[in-house]
This record gives sequence, C-alpha cells and structure tokens, in this order.
Amino acid sequence: MTDTLYDVLGMGNAMVDVLAHAEDDFLAGLGLAKGTMHLIDEDRAVDIYASMGPGIEMSGGSAGNTMAGVASLGGIGAFIGKVRDDQLGDVFAHDLKSIGVSFEVPRAVEGSATGRCLIFVSPDAQRTMNTYLGAGRGLSPADIDPDYVAAAKVVYVEGYLWDTDVAKAAVLKAFGAAHAAGRLTSLTLSDPFCVDRFRAEFRDLVTNHLDIVFANEVEIMSLYEVDTFEAAVEHARREGKIMVLTRSEKGSIVVRGEETYAVPAEPVTRVIDTTGAGDLYASGFLYGFTRGLPLDECARLGGVAAAEVISHVGARPGVLLSTLV
Amino acid sequence: MTDTLYDVLGMGNAMVDVLAHAEDDFLAGLGLAKGTMHLIDEDRAVDIYASMGPGIEMSGGSAGNTMAGVASLGGIGAFIGKVRDDQLGDVFAHDLKSIGVSFEVPRAVEGSATGRCLIFVSPDAQRTMNTYLGAGRGLSPADIDPDYVAAAKVVYVEGYLWDTDVAKAAVLKAFGAAHAAGRLTSLTLSDPFCVDRFRAEFRDLVTNHLDIVFANEVEIMSLYEVDTFEAAVEHARREGKIMVLTRSEKGSIVVRGEETYAVPAEPVTRVIDTTGAGDLYASGFLYGFTRGLPLDECARLGGVAAAEVISHVGARPGVLLSTLV
Repeated sequence: MTDTLYDVLGMGNAMVDVLAHAEDDFLAGLGLAKGTMHLIDEDRAVDIYASMGPGIEMSGGSAGNTMAGVASLGGIGAFIGKVRDDQLGDVFAHDLKSIGVSFEVPRAVEGSATGRCLIFVSPDAQRTMNTYLGAGRGLSPADIDPDYVAAAKVVYVEGYLWDTDVAKAAVLKAFGAAHAAGRLTSLTLSDPFCVDRFRAEFRDLVTNHLDIVFANEVEIMSLYEVDTFEAAVEHARREGKIMVLTRSEKGSIVVRGEETYAVPAEPVTRVIDTTGAGDLYASGFLYGFTRGLPLDECARLGGVAAAEVISHVGARPGVLLSTLV
Repeated sequence: MTDTLYDVLGMGNAMVDVLAHAEDDFLAGLGLAKGTMHLIDEDRAVDIYASMGPGIEMSGGSAGNTMAGVASLGGIGAFIGKVRDDQLGDVFAHDLKSIGVSFEVPRAVEGSATGRCLIFVSPDAQRTMNTYLGAGRGLSPADIDPDYVAAAKVVYVEGYLWDTDVAKAAVLKAFGAAHAAGRLTSLTLSDPFCVDRFRAEFRDLVTNHLDIVFANEVEIMSLYEVDTFEAAVEHARREGKIMVLTRSEKGSIVVRGEETYAVPAEPVTRVIDTTGAGDLYASGFLYGFTRGLPLDECARLGGVAAAEVISHVGARPGVLLSTLV
C-alpha cells in the first residue's frame, strides 16, 4: 500500500445553504415536515425562496460540511461533488479551497445552476431543509479518478447521493477504487426519509460495501425496521462493521460486533441551530479514526465538533476546531 | 403636497457582503487600512477573495442596510440601486423584497456582475471593507423616476455613490425631484476616505442640497478640515441643517443651528462586528424622524438599532428591531 495524500475524501451534493429563521406555523403553511430534508425541484425552490425571509448564504452540503470540519480539526481532506461555473459555484469552491480541502472536479458549463439548500431554522433550533440539487445532479462516474480515491485513507459518502442513479454509480466506482487500494469506505444514512427511499440498497451497502456507517437513532431504526434503538443496535452488531450511532443530547454509541463504546454528548450552553450536527460529528470521528485513535476517542471528537456547530447559525465551524480538542 | 407611500427611499451601491474573520497581520499583508473602505477593481477582488478564508454571504450595501433597518423597525421603505441578473443580484433583491422594501430598478442584463464587498472582521470587531462596485456602477439618472422619489418623505443617499459620475447625476436628479415635491433630502458622508475624495462637493451638498446629514467624528472633522470634534460641531451648526454626528461608544449628537441633542450610546454586552453600525444608526434615526419624533428620540432609536447590529456578525438586523424599541 502506497502512502496516502488525504485523510478523508468526502463525496456529496455540492450546495450553498440559504439560512433564515422561521416559526412553526410558517413551516406548516408550506407543508414542510420539521427537522427533515425535502428534495425540491426548481419551481418549488423559487416558490419557497419567495416566501422566505432575508437569508444568509454559506457553503453547505452534508459531506462538504464534514470535510470543512475535518480541515478545521487539522486533517487533510478532498471533496468530490459537482457545481456549475456560476457565482454560487465560486463560493462553494472558494470556501473549500480556502481551508485547504482539495476540490478538483470540473465545473459544469451548462445545465442547472449550482445546488441550493433552503434551510429554515426554528425557534427550538431544529432545521428544515429544502434541497434543490441543481448542478449536483450531474455528478457521474467520469468525475471519479480511482487514483484520487486511492490517495485517501477513507472515502466518506452522504446517503443523499442515492437520489440520482448517475451519482450512485459514481459512489460505487469510488468504493471499488478505495477497496482495490486497501482503503476504507464509509457512508452516512443522511435522513430518515432517505432511508425509507433506499432501505434495501442501504442494507446491501452496509453488509457488502462499507467499513464504517454513520446513522442517527431514527435512521438506524428505520434501516432495520425495528421499533426500539436497542433492537437496532443488535442488528447493527451483526454487520461486524464499525457502526457509529448518534443520539443527539444522549451522546453516541459505536458498536463493532460485540464491542461497544458509548460516549456522552458534549455540554452546550445554548443550542442555536442544529444544521450540520451529524455532518460535524462525522468530521470529528473520521479525524480521530484516520489518526488511529481508539473508537471511544473518535466518538468524543465527533461530539466536540457537533457541539460547536450547533452553538451558532450555519453548518460549518465558527471557530478553528483544532483549538477545541 | 400629496400623501407619501414610503417613509424613506434609500439610494446606494447594491452589494452582497462576503464576511470572514481576519487577524491584523493578515490585513497588513494585503496593505489594507483597518476600519476603512477600499474601492477595488475586479482583478484585486479576485486576489483578495483568493486569500480570504471561508465566508458568509449576505445582502449589504450601506443604504441597503439602512433600508433593511427601517423595515425591521416597521417603517415603509424603497431602494434604488443597480444589480445584474445573476445569482447575487437575486439574493440582494430577494432580501429587500422579503422584508417589504420596494425595489423596482431594472437589473442590468450585461456588463459587470452584481457588486460585492469583501469584509474582514478583526478580533477587536472592527471591519475592513473592500468594495467591488460591479453592476452598481451602472446606476444612472434613467433609473430615477421623479414620482417614485416624490412618494417618499425622505430620500437618503450614501456618499459612496459619489465615486461614479453617472450615479452622482442620478442622486442630484433624485434630490431635485424630492425638493420639487416638498420632500427632504439626506446623505451620509460614508467614510473618511470618501470625504477626502469629494470634500468640496460634499461641502456644497451640505450647504445647498441637503436637509439632514449623517457623519461620524472622523468624517465631520475631515469635511471641515479641523482637528477637534468641537470645532467640527461649530462649523456644522452654521449650516442650519439637521447634522447627525455619531461617536461610537460616546453616543451621538444632533445639532440644528444652536439646538443640541446629545444621546449616550446604548449598552452592548459584547461588540462582535461593527459592520453596519452607521447604516443602522441612520435606520433608527430616519424611522423616528419620519414618524415626527423629537430629534433626541430619533438619536436614541439610532443608537438602539446600531447596538443590535454590532452584537453579531453581519450588517443587517439579526432580530426584528421593532421588538427592541
């Protein structure tokens, strides 16, 4: 096995977030289920944006956020995702490159604009996301260079990519390239609705293609179609993989076969906006993991990174995370 | 005099701010004088952005910020400025319209992109602004509908518009339309370097075209080329206009001839980012003024709005200002 250039290679939908505050009755009026992610088309994006208050824009995307967190902790990262050659594409690319994350995928020169996620932050700090994939839909196997994938210790993929067939093929190509080079693969289940849409495929991925799986309580229970977290954990153990299960204020638990590592949540003075909590947990975990730290220490680092990002508006770190660990 | 539709009509450079944190030595390395505004061309904007850390984007522009503040206080506003038909132009227009500010100027369909202001926020909360005017340079007398101007009680203009001749002509057309309809005119001197560039013209404006003038200590001393604030105040009195002079943590003073209204600054728990302080002071003052409140109450409202905006990152209100007054 040759040396690696990157700790983590993230793959996901490249997007710019537009964040605004909203009351619960406003969400209800738009027919949005609070706390989840809705895939929307361009017309719906236009309608929702028109009803949205003044926003702030910042680079987002689940795996993009994770890579920003890895870099903020001092890890070396790379990102694969698709933007267009437009202003928001410039913003997305700038923000990754400015923190040292490699981002070399050619931008689309025609077709849909760079993807956007319209995010409503509720008074109780929950976020409701409305994703217009835009140019992100164009991510394809042609964007996967096996040598680039092989240069990372771990490839990390957001489950959201399963929403387009061509991106799915790109992910499978990347997983193949990673394993061929003796690297590891990981996936986050992303969202309970995402698990509903792709349960059978995700089950196959976990059993046959993945080394590390990230899921929250609702997602893992949905994956195994069980009613209790404990039952889900028992299913997860049987995979024999590193199963990283997050439980918000109850902390996280990592299981690998019969091994169990439970870590409490980091204290947070005031939760402002939970956008990015899972993404940043993955940053901390993968940063620790690629440094060879024990699994409970990886989980603790995940909790530290998640605690920082939920303490302010926005899904990327507000301070250099390396100063917190 | 017919009824008015708007309390305040703002005119200024339409821009989207890109905000990032930066240490003092970073600013020095770029040759930037901390706390001021630098006009930059597109090449310089590309260079500065390339060296800038990850940013957040939000609608800005001095007069645009002021109008956002007026609306947040419950006032009825309109804005005149120029964007392009691009993504950042959409953001700028959306953010004004979403809070009820009228914005009807046709967007440019060719030429430079929507203007940007690259803002570095220092650890001591000072901001250093680098403005690429972009499409904003295209604001011209053709964009001024005299009936639209006449529909506002006060037209409020940022001194920054003096940087382009065609915008200057647009402002003079607007001032003429306002006075012809019996409305009032106002201007902020914007920035000490701006006063240096246009001292003679600003002196003429104050004496011959304006009813209300906003300036901070440094700007008013520069306008009259005197070494003390007290000397500047004496000059200001002789104008016989409403001269609104802001002094950061020392509060503000309003003079009109021999009348004097001094108001202390509002307490602020922690100053995070002074971007927009002067803009939001003007919001509060003009909101009060167009409701017929006494000048000291106008100054107090200015202080309340400024205190809110310096308590967080960004130059527009973080909460509904009407809940604070």
